[in-house]
Amino acid sequence: MKKLHKIGFSKLTPLVEAIEKLFSKIHLNPIEEVEIKAALNRILAEDIISSLDIPPFDRSAMDGYAIQAEDSFKATPNSPKKIKLVGIIEIGESSSLKINKGEGIKISTGAPIPEGSDAVIKIEDTEIENNRISLYISLPPGKNISKKGEDIKGGTQVLNKGTELKAEHIALLTSLGFNKVKVRTKPKISIFSSGDELLEPGVSLQPGKIYNSNTPMITALVNLYGGLVIRGESVKDNRETIKNKLFEAAEDSQIIIFTGGTSVGTKDYLPEIINDTGSVLTHGIAMRPGAPVLIGTLKEGIIFCLPGTPVAAYVSFLKITGPAIRKMLGCSVLDPRIEIMAMIDKDVPVSGLGYLHYLRVKVKKEKNEFIAIPVKLKGSGVISSLTKSDGIIEIPPHQEGLKKGEKLIVKLFPR
Amino acid sequence: MKKLHKIGFSKLTPLVEAIEKLFSKIHLNPIEEVEIKAALNRILAEDIISSLDIPPFDRSAMDGYAIQAEDSFKATPNSPKKIKLVGIIEIGESSSLKINKGEGIKISTGAPIPEGSDAVIKIEDTEIENNRISLYISLPPGKNISKKGEDIKGGTQVLNKGTELKAEHIALLTSLGFNKVKVRTKPKISIFSSGDELLEPGVSLQPGKIYNSNTPMITALVNLYGGLVIRGESVKDNRETIKNKLFEAAEDSQIIIFTGGTSVGTKDYLPEIINDTGSVLTHGIAMRPGAPVLIGTLKEGIIFCLPGTPVAAYVSFLKITGPAIRKMLGCSVLDPRIEIMAMIDKDVPVSGLGYLHYLRVKVKKEKNEFIAIPVKLKGSGVISSLTKSDGIIEIPPHQEGLKKGEKLIVKLFPR
Repeated sequence: MKKLHKIGFSKLTPLVEAIEKLFSKIHLNPIEEVEIKAALNRILAEDIISSLDIPPFDRSAMDGYAIQAEDSFKATPNSPKKIKLVGIIEIGESSSLKINKGEGIKISTGAPIPEGSDAVIKIEDTEIENNRISLYISLPPGKNISKKGEDIKGGTQVLNKGTELKAEHIALLTSLGFNKVKVRTKPKISIFSSGDELLEPGVSLQPGKIYNSNTPMITALVNLYGGLVIRGESVKDNRETIKNKLFEAAEDSQIIIFTGGTSVGTKDYLPEIINDTGSVLTHGIAMRPGAPVLIGTLKEGIIFCLPGTPVAAYVSFLKITGPAIRKMLGCSVLDPRIEIMAMIDKDVPVSGLGYLHYLRVKVKKEKNEFIAIPVKLKGSGVISSLTKSDGIIEIPPHQEGLKKGEKLIVKLFPR
Repeated sequence: MKKLHKIGFSKLTPLVEAIEKLFSKIHLNPIEEVEIKAALNRILAEDIISSLDIPPFDRSAMDGYAIQAEDSFKATPNSPKKIKLVGIIEIGESSSLKINKGEGIKISTGAPIPEGSDAVIKIEDTEIENNRISLYISLPPGKNISKKGEDIKGGTQVLNKGTELKAEHIALLTSLGFNKVKVRTKPKISIFSSGDELLEPGVSLQPGKIYNSNTPMITALVNLYGGLVIRGESVKDNRETIKNKLFEAAEDSQIIIFTGGTSVGTKDYLPEIINDTGSVLTHGIAMRPGAPVLIGTLKEGIIFCLPGTPVAAYVSFLKITGPAIRKMLGCSVLDPRIEIMAMIDKDVPVSGLGYLHYLRVKVKKEKNEFIAIPVKLKGSGVISSLTKSDGIIEIPPHQEGLKKGEKLIVKLFPR
């Protein structure tokens, strides 16, 4: 019997191992300061300690009258208590007004509580006539007052570095007086799709050719993950061209992404070029789709050669390249995909034990349960299997498949 | 007994009713064409019908040899079948090569299948010597061939208008040859925060004042929801100033968002101004937080007056203003928040029946279950209750509260 030899990557590396090797080569990006209004989706590069109490003073939570709670004790709609109006405090004012027993001050929501007052009675619970305020309900001390530092005490850490800044973080930072914030610079990324079959969209299709959909797809993903695309092209499968592009990109890119050209075809030059001029960290990963992935380095840049089939390129990006970008950004969540629990609606056998499998599923809500429906597909070139799906179930390498009714984690596509 | 009168909004409108009135005033935005590489997160304005078959021709799914499957029948590693190599087809080529019985053509992944062939044998399953190919396995017809139109048949609808374009949709569109796509123009939006207590971040804090965190927060939310912020300012609580700003914004904005100034304080001028110059659709909505919301119109613009307290402004935006923006964009999903199912970890009583309540919760994963932990809070001014939470549970108006262990929908914060 003749021994069948494996061509190309002789051994497939488990994904965790490939990631570990990759991460050992990644350095944090430098810090830059950006205006708070441009900080959405950026990754915070410093811990934020509050320098203020929020609120910065005891303030009214209602429109009404600042009073001494005791003056309202036993008040009811049938037997109101009466006090005297001695002034008004508007919001934004710093008032030196004080109240004594039997007195009230008209006050707006958000205005500082005057000295001597320990409660605010809502305007709806009062009536006023000739500067005499009738209190119709009894209030406990502290009622309707937001205490100084109630939301945030000065000196406490309110945000951790590595946070992806969203609307609520921006609100928090601004309320503390920040108009700029330190974030990590965006990794500069070059994207190439290699293949003599590739045409750029906008021209008419020629026999044997297909449109290059990988560069725009990967560009969109890089944007979603926080990188900065500085170059996006398709290149011919020509050794010199590919080598020149690679070297050109290595001059100014922290990450270089190729799709296509990593397999074992006659024109798959990339593995050799990277091996000769840089260093191959991993070639061949035990996952499906995505097995032909190559991770390498050249000068200061990290190179990802993703498969040319769009679904394989997409999945490899989510699992490998995306987390690498977020690692450079110092982000505390390397995989930003949201996980939900769903019940799989049919048996899913797996061929090829030893591979991590990515199953595309559509998710439906039924009563209080999510149902995951595997999306029928043939091969990893099928883009419509992505647009018809909501996310991915990962089937670990040593699991033989999924059983109908099993409850599983679905990782939703990044949004 | 004296009758207590309600001041301000005399009647609270149920949210669904307010939304219905609001949506009746909303028109779809015009269509513009954008380059595909700038289309991420835009809303598709046309149904997409494929003008092509994808793949456009039968192509090889593997690197190997195009053969007649029959020639491989009964082949095993111990008794291989032999055929003759008669040529090579590279990817991107349009070849006129044909094969007959007993012949094979070397072929790359993605290259067109030659006439006469009905299967591709992987290179790993063969050996070649002096143009004689040994086939070590038996293949069924069709093996390793991606049939023309297998992914998408020409003439089928592949994307619906109203789709929010993500990486996978961009890939699909480009694979069909699109380099531009029709989307809805972004609604132009002006944002004002009103209040004499507001300071812009960057200056030092003064007594009685707080920093304006609402404008940057709402700006971030508008960006997330697909609007275009053309103006963002804080304004003093002065009738003329507010009126002037409102009229200035109504000239060029489709949506005008105010935070603050909608309640019943002495300086809350907005309801009166809108009532005098435009039209109030709803003032006062039966939800907590967010009750003081006012929705109105002025000329062609829609005005949202959201509460001044950040959490109330945030929640009102998610429930009302955000969906209105997406309605203008023609988006098929008006509320883009992701829902997960979670078990609440304690009883939550609700005071104030008749209100829709928004409960902020932190979500934790425990085994195969999500646990929702209510975030302790005091009042709707507490920004840190947002940064400490992951999402919101909605408690319907006529429910008295939540029971520990109940399984509920958590709407995650928009990302």
